[in-house]
Amino acid sequence: MPTQTAIILLSGGLDSATSLAIAKSQGYACYALSFDYGQRHRIELEAANKVANHLGVIEHKLINLNLDSIGGSALTDTDINVPITGVSTKEIPITYVPARNTVFLSLALAWAEVLSVSNLFIGVNAVDYSGYPDCRPEFITAYEKMANLATKAGVEGHPFKIHTPLIDLSKAEIIKKGLDLGVDYSLTVSCYQPDKTYACGVCDACRLRAEGFRALGVNDPTQYIS
Amino acid sequence: MPTQTAIILLSGGLDSATSLAIAKSQGYACYALSFDYGQRHRIELEAANKVANHLGVIEHKLINLNLDSIGGSALTDTDINVPITGVSTKEIPITYVPARNTVFLSLALAWAEVLSVSNLFIGVNAVDYSGYPDCRPEFITAYEKMANLATKAGVEGHPFKIHTPLIDLSKAEIIKKGLDLGVDYSLTVSCYQPDKTYACGVCDACRLRAEGFRALGVNDPTQYIS
Repeated sequence: MPTQTAIILLSGGLDSATSLAIAKSQGYACYALSFDYGQRHRIELEAANKVANHLGVIEHKLINLNLDSIGGSALTDTDINVPITGVSTKEIPITYVPARNTVFLSLALAWAEVLSVSNLFIGVNAVDYSGYPDCRPEFITAYEKMANLATKAGVEGHPFKIHTPLIDLSKAEIIKKGLDLGVDYSLTVSCYQPDKTYACGVCDACRLRAEGFRALGVNDPTQYIS
Repeated sequence: MPTQTAIILLSGGLDSATSLAIAKSQGYACYALSFDYGQRHRIELEAANKVANHLGVIEHKLINLNLDSIGGSALTDTDINVPITGVSTKEIPITYVPARNTVFLSLALAWAEVLSVSNLFIGVNAVDYSGYPDCRPEFITAYEKMANLATKAGVEGHPFKIHTPLIDLSKAEIIKKGLDLGVDYSLTVSCYQPDKTYACGVCDACRLRAEGFRALGVNDPTQYIS
């Protein structure tokens, strides 16, 4: 039986690195896809590159996409500040990038169709997460259905499967799984506003990451500013 | 009641120009969105600009997207020839661009969310069309459902509506509707491989367009090479 192949959305953060490690552990030969979308934390792309090299992929593709020309998020519009964690409300936070996972999955789908790859991995998580609507299981289910109506492969009986191996895990469980699989988390960047090698320590992404390491009782390799 | 707003996917072709004219006739104030995606027929972007000026829009945004780095279509890979019409089979043709409408709608969705616009218009057609899977009503229905799970607006009770005013019309009916609404089709470009101002006359897009004008019995303003 030939090796199964998969495309992994790789941001350079902790979750997507774990997602890649899980895909590999399940026997998939992996392609990695990253986006330069005008994000404030563009340094994560260097991290994505390091993670791809560390874990090993067939190809790591970078797509340029000027989402900053659309704006509407603290991550793509430098006039909007990244909120300090702890002042969160029930509302979807301003770090939400409109339709980001929809856009990213769509481009992954396009590449998957060209490569004849049927498996897509995305490291969304609906437990220790920021409340983004496009990280929920119902979104993923609807996306998969749409994808199989949208594409030649779907219509011709080669359906796409969207894998979300982290969706039900806590951040601590994600980290434990990654460590078990040999992920070097010092290569990853979660912070929304890192200063070169240092994470801010006060944004939502930093908080969730730090709490995950703390809950697991293992050393957090992240270098914080303070 | 405030004016309703809409985003129109505007390619520079006959269908999307008609779609914009219909949206305007229904009272929508319109934003137009075009993509420079590495298409062979990049000249259509000049046509899109002319159509936007001719019919009038609030803003015409161009998003750059290197789909040619993905390839897999005669429209984005110059090593693949555009087929001559008449040799068509039951298969989806090589001019199909993998997941194109999925990608385009996703970026329209992102912009719509930032603008607080709930209406998207796409000029897909399932009658006189090239057999692309992402032009069918079942795809649009699934896309709309996914979009309302993916987004802050959808979750917060401001659902998106995807309008497909051309989906059930023949090409002749589309042209008739556009002419009734004052569309100047000499500004539009349908050809997949135009040579500056001349259309090839032999590709599928040229064939469908020419047959539409012929069936309606009106003058075709397209300038063909031969």
